[in-house]
Amino acid sequence: MSTVIQLDKFYTALVSEYDKALNHSGINGERVAERLTKLSQIGLTEQGGSRRIAFTPEERQAKELVKEWMKEAGLDVREDGAGNVFGLFEGKQQKPVVLSGSHVDSVPNGGHFDGPLGVLAALEVAQAWRDSDYQPDYSYEVVIFSDEEGARFNGGLTGSRAMTGDIDIAKQKHLKDFDGKSFEEVIVSDGLTMEGFQHAERDLSDVAAFVEVHIEQGKRLEKEDLPVGIVTGIAGPTWLNIAFVGEAGHAGNTPMNDRKDALVAASEFVANVPNFPSQVSDSAVATVGKLEVFPNGVNVIPGEVRLTVDIRDIHEHTKDQVVTSIIQTAEEIAADHQIEVQVKTTMNVQPVAVKEEMQEKAALSVQEALGIQPFHLPSGAGHDAMALGRYVPMAMLFTRSKDGISHNPKEWSSLNDCVKTIHVLKNYLEKLCQE
Amino acid sequence: MSTVIQLDKFYTALVSEYDKALNHSGINGERVAERLTKLSQIGLTEQGGSRRIAFTPEERQAKELVKEWMKEAGLDVREDGAGNVFGLFEGKQQKPVVLSGSHVDSVPNGGHFDGPLGVLAALEVAQAWRDSDYQPDYSYEVVIFSDEEGARFNGGLTGSRAMTGDIDIAKQKHLKDFDGKSFEEVIVSDGLTMEGFQHAERDLSDVAAFVEVHIEQGKRLEKEDLPVGIVTGIAGPTWLNIAFVGEAGHAGNTPMNDRKDALVAASEFVANVPNFPSQVSDSAVATVGKLEVFPNGVNVIPGEVRLTVDIRDIHEHTKDQVVTSIIQTAEEIAADHQIEVQVKTTMNVQPVAVKEEMQEKAALSVQEALGIQPFHLPSGAGHDAMALGRYVPMAMLFTRSKDGISHNPKEWSSLNDCVKTIHVLKNYLEKLCQE
Repeated sequence: MSTVIQLDKFYTALVSEYDKALNHSGINGERVAERLTKLSQIGLTEQGGSRRIAFTPEERQAKELVKEWMKEAGLDVREDGAGNVFGLFEGKQQKPVVLSGSHVDSVPNGGHFDGPLGVLAALEVAQAWRDSDYQPDYSYEVVIFSDEEGARFNGGLTGSRAMTGDIDIAKQKHLKDFDGKSFEEVIVSDGLTMEGFQHAERDLSDVAAFVEVHIEQGKRLEKEDLPVGIVTGIAGPTWLNIAFVGEAGHAGNTPMNDRKDALVAASEFVANVPNFPSQVSDSAVATVGKLEVFPNGVNVIPGEVRLTVDIRDIHEHTKDQVVTSIIQTAEEIAADHQIEVQVKTTMNVQPVAVKEEMQEKAALSVQEALGIQPFHLPSGAGHDAMALGRYVPMAMLFTRSKDGISHNPKEWSSLNDCVKTIHVLKNYLEKLCQE
Repeated sequence: MSTVIQLDKFYTALVSEYDKALNHSGINGERVAERLTKLSQIGLTEQGGSRRIAFTPEERQAKELVKEWMKEAGLDVREDGAGNVFGLFEGKQQKPVVLSGSHVDSVPNGGHFDGPLGVLAALEVAQAWRDSDYQPDYSYEVVIFSDEEGARFNGGLTGSRAMTGDIDIAKQKHLKDFDGKSFEEVIVSDGLTMEGFQHAERDLSDVAAFVEVHIEQGKRLEKEDLPVGIVTGIAGPTWLNIAFVGEAGHAGNTPMNDRKDALVAASEFVANVPNFPSQVSDSAVATVGKLEVFPNGVNVIPGEVRLTVDIRDIHEHTKDQVVTSIIQTAEEIAADHQIEVQVKTTMNVQPVAVKEEMQEKAALSVQEALGIQPFHLPSGAGHDAMALGRYVPMAMLFTRSKDGISHNPKEWSSLNDCVKTIHVLKNYLEKLCQE
């Protein structure tokens, strides 16, 4: 019962404030709303969120449903060995091809826009072209990548990295999911094979561009009061695990001048972290999100603090500058406090910048399709476009997120903003598919 | 097997470096070592520590053993309704009385000195008096207080507070221990009753003084290279629970200038805490020992930080100054960061200073008994002397602790230091028991 009400509410909320004047050039907002709603029904959680974990029957069901819609749009549908789905709209030329899409898997209790919007936006453009008998010069493929979120194997971008050949197959095979099932077992249960997975690697020389529409998952567009933004780059994170090791002691019996308090040193460090990004770049960010104190007793001087710094920027050299400053500061503060510090880099993903010419073309599309000033912003989170962007010209369009909330049932973008983004995408793809 | 070796080792370690020249005036180091060893056998843990939780057969067995030794020393032994044991050495006058002692209960895996040393020191003085046919003017009682540690009911000083009438009997009755047993059930199983417990309150008008010998549980005496110190006061702790409440967000998608990072604010606060105690007093200390971050995810800006500040001093007015400065600083920093702060005082124990005249007399005893300069130091931890000290003249002698370690099987004080402390105690008690 509650499920039905939930869904009615979701569809109604989408269309109730929809500006029907946006239904033009073959793009239909109600169809997008209906499809978002139908996808949201697959794996709907009690909290009203999405649970479509990679390689589960839910992700599979979502893929099959989109395949049906692809066929309705006259696309030639195929699936590769990694479970990536491609819907081909043949252009006047067979090659090169332009790709657009995203994913349909979700985190365990995610929202209904993260992933599906990018797939449906790409599909809506194909449908609009079909309905208006438009044929691009280049061929066009709508794509669904498998396992973007990585919620199951603590990885992510699995389908897109399989396609670009950036997966160590021998390692991947033996990864264990949260139930202890191996990656191989899991994909076999989804009708795939490791051999097929390995063969998902694609010759990318015929790919002219990849464009991904995604919700922003931040608040910048909301602050700017803009429906859509052009991504400047995808900030690969560097994770530093830092341990400050001092000396535990009784909080009552140890004089202030005879302490090696790991938390006092760590705190001085954490309070300094926000100073570094702005010194090198507007897009750099640095965050201590996780911090643990040992032994963590009310009346015990902390003997050790372990924390993680997440540093991101869309340019590698500026990110590296922040990383260097932060490590140096940790070492200086530890030395000042006469305590030890250990620093370990546990993740270092190379950022991918979006080429100027790709951004400029997208900016033109924003102006042409919506008549508004283009706005550029970095992506702090990873996306399939990051995997593709290492090899082919890549761009991303962000749709405004309400309150910046994502990976949460409350994730929301208005249908007006979604459809405006699709109009930009259509204009942009028409430019990119032009000889 | 290993138990026997352990005990042999403990006794051997005590006596192997013992300076037999300290055996004089009726005080016998080997006897003290033997008794410490016998007590350490009761509740010996696999790690070689003591586990004599309050009101268990182990605490009971330890009390009964000491009672036997009290009787050997010719003391008149009685037990009150709270399980406190008193061994009376009658003086030339029946009243007033001077008390000395400590406890025999321990934390779950504690050391062999915390508590027993104070009891055995007080007993050794009585034995020395008996052996040398000395009779003080005032009567003297060796005391064992029940449940000093509070490991079972998260309280502590239970016996001493029962004696001073500082226990809310109605509440105490229903406290639950770690196994869910009520306080009443627990003491009944130890042969006591709630009615008797209530009647343990004693008329303190006839108590001239209470002196407690205890290991320091800190490193000050070790740094000064001194066997014994005179306590200036017992620092009652104030505990502040402070919550900094900001706004969680994605570490990648939230610009640095648009954050309400609770951990950055909390860290600025924690880094400032050590500045306040030294501004008001040499003995004040302030420690953030416990700190928790929410949601504590590597890539999530912390939305909330909850921490506890433990503030101690032996003088109430200086402690209050530190508390006030710390609360003010938390509020100022939160305001600077535009985040919320909540402060709650969860504990506020009044400190108890040792009267100047009591300290001076003890200093004289240090000089007379050992021929060394007296050294004064505060006690950061609570002791039975804190409960007694609110009502009667009180003093404490600290024995040097190795590496400041306590509440741990590695707790250690050399037999030389223990016996030197007993010589000081004997001299001091003879002064205090003099008309």
